[in-house]
Amino acid sequence: MPMSMSVLAILRKGLSRGRWPYLPRRAWSSCSSSNSKITVSEGMPTTDLFSTAFTVWGANTNVGKTLISAGLSSSVISCGDSLSYLKPLQTGFPKDSDSRFVVNKLRHTLPCLSNITPRRILVSHSIQSVSPAVLANSPRSPQQDSFVMSANLQKNLKVRNEFYSSEQFMLERDSSSGEVSWLTKDWNEGMKSFSAFTSTFRASTIWSWFNAVSPHIAAAEEGLSVSEAALLQEIEKSMFAFSKHAGIVDNHDQRWTILETAGGVASPGPDGTLQCDLYRPFRLPSLLVGDGRLGGISSTITAYESLVCRGYDVNAIVLIDHHFGNGDLLQRYIRHKLPVFVLPSIPEDLNDDLIVWFTKTASRFNEIRDHIKVVHKARMMQLQSMQRKGGHYLWWPFTQHSLVPEDQITVIDARVGDNFMIYKNANDSDIIMPQFDACASWWTQGPDLALQLELARQVSYASGRFGHVMLPENVYEPALQCAEFLIESIGKDWASRVYYSDNGSTAVEIAIKMAFRKYLHDHQLVTETDSCKNVLCLKVLALRGSYHGDTLGAQDAQAPSAYTGFLQQPWYEGRGLFLDPPHVFMHNRKWHIDIPKSYIELNKSMTSVVKLSFQARSELFDKGRDSSELAALYKEFIRTNMCACVENCEHLAALIIEPVIHGAGGMTLIDPLFQRILVNECKRKKIPVIFDEVFAGCWRLGVQTCIQHLGCTPDIGCYSKLLTGGVVPLAVTLASSGIFESFKGDSKLLALLHGHSYSGHAIGCQAALTALQWLSDPNTNPNLLSSTMTLAELWDPARVSELSAHPEVQRVIALGTVFALELKASASESGYGSLLSRGIVQALREDQVYTRPLGNVIYFMCGPTTPPATCTKLLDKLSRQLDVFTARKHANANHACG
Amino acid sequence: MPMSMSVLAILRKGLSRGRWPYLPRRAWSSCSSSNSKITVSEGMPTTDLFSTAFTVWGANTNVGKTLISAGLSSSVISCGDSLSYLKPLQTGFPKDSDSRFVVNKLRHTLPCLSNITPRRILVSHSIQSVSPAVLANSPRSPQQDSFVMSANLQKNLKVRNEFYSSEQFMLERDSSSGEVSWLTKDWNEGMKSFSAFTSTFRASTIWSWFNAVSPHIAAAEEGLSVSEAALLQEIEKSMFAFSKHAGIVDNHDQRWTILETAGGVASPGPDGTLQCDLYRPFRLPSLLVGDGRLGGISSTITAYESLVCRGYDVNAIVLIDHHFGNGDLLQRYIRHKLPVFVLPSIPEDLNDDLIVWFTKTASRFNEIRDHIKVVHKARMMQLQSMQRKGGHYLWWPFTQHSLVPEDQITVIDARVGDNFMIYKNANDSDIIMPQFDACASWWTQGPDLALQLELARQVSYASGRFGHVMLPENVYEPALQCAEFLIESIGKDWASRVYYSDNGSTAVEIAIKMAFRKYLHDHQLVTETDSCKNVLCLKVLALRGSYHGDTLGAQDAQAPSAYTGFLQQPWYEGRGLFLDPPHVFMHNRKWHIDIPKSYIELNKSMTSVVKLSFQARSELFDKGRDSSELAALYKEFIRTNMCACVENCEHLAALIIEPVIHGAGGMTLIDPLFQRILVNECKRKKIPVIFDEVFAGCWRLGVQTCIQHLGCTPDIGCYSKLLTGGVVPLAVTLASSGIFESFKGDSKLLALLHGHSYSGHAIGCQAALTALQWLSDPNTNPNLLSSTMTLAELWDPARVSELSAHPEVQRVIALGTVFALELKASASESGYGSLLSRGIVQALREDQVYTRPLGNVIYFMCGPTTPPATCTKLLDKLSRQLDVFTARKHANANHACG
Repeated sequence: MPMSMSVLAILRKGLSRGRWPYLPRRAWSSCSSSNSKITVSEGMPTTDLFSTAFTVWGANTNVGKTLISAGLSSSVISCGDSLSYLKPLQTGFPKDSDSRFVVNKLRHTLPCLSNITPRRILVSHSIQSVSPAVLANSPRSPQQDSFVMSANLQKNLKVRNEFYSSEQFMLERDSSSGEVSWLTKDWNEGMKSFSAFTSTFRASTIWSWFNAVSPHIAAAEEGLSVSEAALLQEIEKSMFAFSKHAGIVDNHDQRWTILETAGGVASPGPDGTLQCDLYRPFRLPSLLVGDGRLGGISSTITAYESLVCRGYDVNAIVLIDHHFGNGDLLQRYIRHKLPVFVLPSIPEDLNDDLIVWFTKTASRFNEIRDHIKVVHKARMMQLQSMQRKGGHYLWWPFTQHSLVPEDQITVIDARVGDNFMIYKNANDSDIIMPQFDACASWWTQGPDLALQLELARQVSYASGRFGHVMLPENVYEPALQCAEFLIESIGKDWASRVYYSDNGSTAVEIAIKMAFRKYLHDHQLVTETDSCKNVLCLKVLALRGSYHGDTLGAQDAQAPSAYTGFLQQPWYEGRGLFLDPPHVFMHNRKWHIDIPKSYIELNKSMTSVVKLSFQARSELFDKGRDSSELAALYKEFIRTNMCACVENCEHLAALIIEPVIHGAGGMTLIDPLFQRILVNECKRKKIPVIFDEVFAGCWRLGVQTCIQHLGCTPDIGCYSKLLTGGVVPLAVTLASSGIFESFKGDSKLLALLHGHSYSGHAIGCQAALTALQWLSDPNTNPNLLSSTMTLAELWDPARVSELSAHPEVQRVIALGTVFALELKASASESGYGSLLSRGIVQALREDQVYTRPLGNVIYFMCGPTTPPATCTKLLDKLSRQLDVFTARKHANANHACG
Repeated sequence: MPMSMSVLAILRKGLSRGRWPYLPRRAWSSCSSSNSKITVSEGMPTTDLFSTAFTVWGANTNVGKTLISAGLSSSVISCGDSLSYLKPLQTGFPKDSDSRFVVNKLRHTLPCLSNITPRRILVSHSIQSVSPAVLANSPRSPQQDSFVMSANLQKNLKVRNEFYSSEQFMLERDSSSGEVSWLTKDWNEGMKSFSAFTSTFRASTIWSWFNAVSPHIAAAEEGLSVSEAALLQEIEKSMFAFSKHAGIVDNHDQRWTILETAGGVASPGPDGTLQCDLYRPFRLPSLLVGDGRLGGISSTITAYESLVCRGYDVNAIVLIDHHFGNGDLLQRYIRHKLPVFVLPSIPEDLNDDLIVWFTKTASRFNEIRDHIKVVHKARMMQLQSMQRKGGHYLWWPFTQHSLVPEDQITVIDARVGDNFMIYKNANDSDIIMPQFDACASWWTQGPDLALQLELARQVSYASGRFGHVMLPENVYEPALQCAEFLIESIGKDWASRVYYSDNGSTAVEIAIKMAFRKYLHDHQLVTETDSCKNVLCLKVLALRGSYHGDTLGAQDAQAPSAYTGFLQQPWYEGRGLFLDPPHVFMHNRKWHIDIPKSYIELNKSMTSVVKLSFQARSELFDKGRDSSELAALYKEFIRTNMCACVENCEHLAALIIEPVIHGAGGMTLIDPLFQRILVNECKRKKIPVIFDEVFAGCWRLGVQTCIQHLGCTPDIGCYSKLLTGGVVPLAVTLASSGIFESFKGDSKLLALLHGHSYSGHAIGCQAALTALQWLSDPNTNPNLLSSTMTLAELWDPARVSELSAHPEVQRVIALGTVFALELKASASESGYGSLLSRGIVQALREDQVYTRPLGNVIYFMCGPTTPPATCTKLLDKLSRQLDVFTARKHANANHACG
């Protein structure tokens, strides 16, 4: 359904008439409703921190949320602050209206408002996208049937206004959008006098339904549903509309927004999504209205925990007493964490409209108000100080601190699926806005919000059940089940054992130890043991440009690079035969294979006949290439080099490769044909083969394992990063039974004596099991094609092709969740230390895309569940920045000439 | 108050009369009430798996738990199975009795029971430790006041029995214990005929109170409280009492236990502990009775999540419909995970005692029953297959698989604070029993159950809020707050930056890289960069026997050991000057310093005057020793060795030590005086100092950091293991500002280019912050002495002294949470591969203590919050096993002689 925007429509209308007091502030792109702007974080709202905003949640339905909202509203206004009360979802309307309740209570309890006629208080209700037919069909009991036509309503639009005589509501329909809004009758007069208030107040209901049931049932019955995105956008608009308005000078210390939910914390919204999930993108500070009734301790604590489990900060619990002493126990239980405010019982006789109760509780509400204010201020101070503190205490990996100005430090308040929610203080505003995590937080991320919250539940389960229990000689469900799943999926038909560790680097160190033992075993070198240490020189066979981690053992298995210089690790030796691999890339709309010179020198006649360009990426993975001339050339190159090594009395005791793409080495695609031939040659010579899939595995490249891309299996495989879905560190080294058997013997000293205290920790294994299952199930992963069990194409081929033809672009690649683009650069501008891409990267960050380049290579990495439409928007944003980059370059060049 | 045991008393009495049909089975030590047996896992119950046992939880109070229990009981019995219905906590008694309700429903709905007089159905209620005064004072309304004296009651004991006319209850008082029990009147007759039932049934209420309020209020008001331990023990007894009884032959497939809770899942028990926490040690499979009312979706989901967060397996949700369609949405939300059973609404007219409703729902209850049965069987099959599967899929670190018979694999079902809960199938019984995790799961553990559950909440919070977000150039609360806390506690006065990684080994590799750069910087060697690689030989200064991790860089910083042999890592080189340190230990009730021969050879005159034994451990840490002769000897030894190194043109570019105790090296205590002098010598020569506190830090040795023990600070410190309280991997390398500054420059290539994808992951940082705060707060850590901010002495000095004098003991040490004992061994029996301690270790495991030795060194490691009394029990258990070991050795010797 098309998104409705009546509040905005009203705002605009009011604005054009020059009478509306609230100026909507549209400083941030995500708030823009204009289609010309590309919004990458679809449906992710921006939160305004200009006012003290918080959500009122209920431990259950009927615990008095609206009473608390009313009491707080009264307290806020009585101290001269301004307030926006927001009820996004209202059922039982118009009979029930929490907005109206709050307004009425204010009139009764606040002397300053008691003399004011209702028209001066603005109550805005909007019913959106209601078709006349729905309204006509809606009434079902005689009691609900007494409709009265309002003067300026369209003909067939009936509204029950029996309850509105005292409030003078009227319906107004926006003629252009066809949307209908409920407003106070004396709108115009109200408008005129509004700005005269020193205390301003606004109460609005955004969506409402007739039936007094849960919104998801009302929405279904009344044919009026609301998408999550529309709901978030409306709330965002309301918050911004309130945050600043013309004619009133105040500071944000004196502005408040109360968002009151419907029902309990986990009561469903209109489309069935639980409200605690629905409002999670805002992650507003929370006030939980507890349950003072019998059983209320339990429902209060469980509601509290469900909020905590979703990453909400609950600032206080407020409880209306029912003489069960619930407040005492809650206070004891939640000790030190948050205050529990207890309010007296509601009198049984409600004849006085609770005037006495509100009077009695006024000072308590003031305490609560002050507490919320203090917490809000503390939060703002924390957010505002985090750049400074972060720059003071943290030592970032892979970062030259001298090059990071304090104001460029990103303050991350939360994650919502693929998006960071970052704090920004700019243009005199404080906001929390989405920023697409386009480097998937160092290639670890996969979850959308649904999986993220499921992982939070599973992580808490494993933590509650096990914490951590040690692995050796033991067995427990998460470690076992994760191992079973891995052996039967990624390890199918080749692996038989799972060795757990903590990260890719340790997984690789373990893999090398495994491979070396197996090699010594297969080549009858085991018995010589330590005595042969000085005689035997074991090396790895690896590809230049591949990266396997930062610990010394993993580093020694890599060719020299920026990461391995003497200043980085004086002990680095580079204990390998490092071959130059053929690179593959797209340039000028075509795929090319770039063969190193050394190959050509080897066999000039052959190189003249090989095919080095393709139209489609799929041709690269075609197994038919095994019999091509290129295959023969590759084989000759590999054999020649391996022979040379043996002649030097060095043992090539392991092959280690990053299948298909070299990640940290600059996102270079390696010809899969070359890697396949290399693997087969090693297998022929009984050299154990290690696939380092730390980066490439677990759906990163569109498949569960790159074994599917390469068409050959390793003896050992390393997995980490996306393994846990991106929540905690965990790594596995999978091994064949042959590898495992080479460590058997009668002494413990023959066992693999390598381990980390948290090997196979329950939380990581539980997360891995959850994530692996989720991502490999078409029911939960919308991108998964059940026909091929591969991910759908995420990067629009037309756009990728277009980018490859850009004049400033050296090459592009796109595979699975990865898109990369190398800028044309002179020798001095390229490499890991290059700052060439800096301007583009900075501009992308300003444009809500968080990237972190590898020198002059800019890459985007999404999750396996990211909608392809989002990827398209990323490409479009990049395209725009490339144009800016080009234009600036030309301008500079012209300037230089001039 | 003394623990009451009326049910047991009754059981025993019945047994002695030869009439009681249920034989309590006391196979496992923890169940024993005898004082002669040492129960190490105080208060931790054993769970009987002989029957299909599950807990009935409520999403709220009044959701129909007892109706569900009754329906299920009926269904179970109607298919010929036997059932024990257990209501541990009953308030409003005797007016309300869920046991009675269940019994009555069975009589009404089951044809086979309808003809049976009530006396044949045993209902046992016990009111425990009720003082006559309490009973006399208790009634407060006229309605509650009509007490009638029962014939065999003691004089002042009044009981309201007005509601019991139809059920023939009577009170019985155990003359020896003074405890009072409520039983069917026709007890004796009932007993006689009971065993004649093919379907047997038992309903019992363990603790009850008069007032119909929450148990914690009733307990307070009526002066009848119950400790957690007593409650768990009573439930355990009830379960075991039911599991087998004489005269009836059946198999455990046909036995059921239903444990029905009171109120909602998080309603408090009698001492205020939430029931979901209280019953957690059993972790019984759970049936959640959802709430079908308005708002019930929310309370059902939040209750479900609170169970999940504590590690419960929720098998099904059952819901009584209230026409709000709650079942549909719950089904949709909890998709794939567990079934949601919906039962029809309760009729408004209850005149027929729900006979029609129960008849109508019978087939639904059968479905639920069958589902629970299937889940139970699946669980049993899983538990029974885990040894086999674990032995098949897992590759354990540091373990020779050939030496681990399948039946010695430990199946861990859960953790409860310091205890594993392990599955055992032995003596024809299936149980889950506690086993003290006496190696703290490779030295990671610290939490008691309260901290464990708090960590589960915090971990879920961080996961829900962040999952993981990348660290470089970013700042987010958990990483920042954890860093702040560390700098201001452990790093106080010396550290200024926190570098995050994943485990001790990576923390050490980072530390070495830091130290080397600083050394190059301070000694003006930086500019030479890569060209000097072949000229400059950088080495570490380290102590023989210290251990710093398993990755190559960390290994190269260690002296050769079992972990570093050629078969383990052919690349190992041992790039250090490794000094022999002086060891300290207790033997024969005295502390001794063992000085290596090389020291003595250095200065024979001096060694004759130094003091090498002490009475009290505290003398070792006395700073006054700095001016002793021994100090002078140490200094001479250190200087001589360092000079020799420099003469070889090697640069000692870092000192790395494990402060105070070498962990993996065999739990050897190093003279702190020696380490302090070493540190000072290095500082004098501008050699950066690394404290590897991965094992020793974070309260492991009784202090937050061993800086407190040594009295000197490092330049770099490594922390991991207990850092997160033992839930997830996380490591930090703390560094001084001088270290940090040596990486500054204008190029990224000068930065520290080492990082792991999950560096500073939010979940780990949140857990670390929580655990560090918890353990360093006397309000939450009962062992923390606020006067000295050190842990109380956990290992009873008298017992430690006693053990040091045992004839088979070479040495003992005890410090902080660590106790270690080295067995006397011949050269061939000692070392890491030794199997000498195997028998003792196996016997300790059978005796509920999980240990894992380091060769011939047996150690115990508890948590910083473990009660000293528990440690005492551990020592007593060890003492017993040592005697057995000695006796067996002598017997073998005699046998050999004979």
